[in-house]
Amino acid sequence: MDFSSKLLENAVYEVSQLPGIGKRTALRLVLHLLRQPQEQTQRLSFALQEMRDQIKHCKNCHNISDVDICDICNNPSRDRSIICVVEDIRDVMAIENTSQYRGLYHVLGGKISPMEGVGPHDLTINSLVEKVKGGQVAELIFALSSTMEGDTTNFYIYKQIEAFDVKTSTIARGIAVGDELEYADEVTLGRSILNRVPFENSLKSS
Amino acid sequence: MDFSSKLLENAVYEVSQLPGIGKRTALRLVLHLLRQPQEQTQRLSFALQEMRDQIKHCKNCHNISDVDICDICNNPSRDRSIICVVEDIRDVMAIENTSQYRGLYHVLGGKISPMEGVGPHDLTINSLVEKVKGGQVAELIFALSSTMEGDTTNFYIYKQIEAFDVKTSTIARGIAVGDELEYADEVTLGRSILNRVPFENSLKSS
Repeated sequence: MDFSSKLLENAVYEVSQLPGIGKRTALRLVLHLLRQPQEQTQRLSFALQEMRDQIKHCKNCHNISDVDICDICNNPSRDRSIICVVEDIRDVMAIENTSQYRGLYHVLGGKISPMEGVGPHDLTINSLVEKVKGGQVAELIFALSSTMEGDTTNFYIYKQIEAFDVKTSTIARGIAVGDELEYADEVTLGRSILNRVPFENSLKSS
Repeated sequence: MDFSSKLLENAVYEVSQLPGIGKRTALRLVLHLLRQPQEQTQRLSFALQEMRDQIKHCKNCHNISDVDICDICNNPSRDRSIICVVEDIRDVMAIENTSQYRGLYHVLGGKISPMEGVGPHDLTINSLVEKVKGGQVAELIFALSSTMEGDTTNFYIYKQIEAFDVKTSTIARGIAVGDELEYADEVTLGRSILNRVPFENSLKSS
């Protein structure tokens, strides 16, 4: 693309560095900002910079937070003996939205993925193992994506804490509520039969 | 969405103000920035602000430019007697990409659209009429989108300059190169038959 302005070209280039945004979309977004009051661009630009410079991670669960210990870890009504292991803040938000979980979290910051050069030491696995060693944890719930990388990460952590007295579980894999059986893949359907639950349980959770 | 951090929430909010970007996409983009080096966010934020604060519009054609008179208007090899009337900079870029046009442009900054509250005086129509009044313009090419708003804008400008000695034309509407006839809508196909061109012309342009 041939721009009539270096300033515009530079802005489009930087916006197009974001994932899933190509040059054309970037140009559309930048032209939109040009049509809006100057303050909108100022606010956007300030909000991004302030966030990047000042954001913290909770020292306990590694979730994104404005303070050293996040609201969830600080909440006295939370059950400190259960830890749900998740990949990032989006998973925390998704689980919090269900209102079904009252324990704490541990945010790994990713999954073990040799393809993307992410090893165990790039994640917060050590700090999780230390927590388990401390003996205060009764159960770890693995809530990672059901992918090769997720399974590898689960297994790696499991091997590290095997020796300690801690229960481990994974979230149930099965047919999503509202889905039709005929469209489910066979692995999911197979697992959902193997891990069937007493009918009374399904009455309770609805 | 319930955020664990005000800084994050604010950044997501500002990003989600951009057109076509919802809260979920905004969160994905912001989390991406958090995983990248701090400099990337700085560069993005600076590029946006610098562009918004310093960008100019060419005093002649109203295209986006870093200087008072843009490169196209300043180019002595351009034919100053032909003006192509377009909506915004993207159309200028699209036409420039064809390398088929050697005249100047006039960027309106939008189309007349009562539905969106855009009247003739929100566009640069007056300055275009002044140029035509100056008597230096031999031909105006209307290259607006083929929509109700585009047609209205064309007609409005046409009425303003009717009295002056200037040729007006619109870009040809017809079947796109590579398209199959059976999928073309009847209006386009009808116009392409009415405005058929000598076969020799189609040999030249390919």
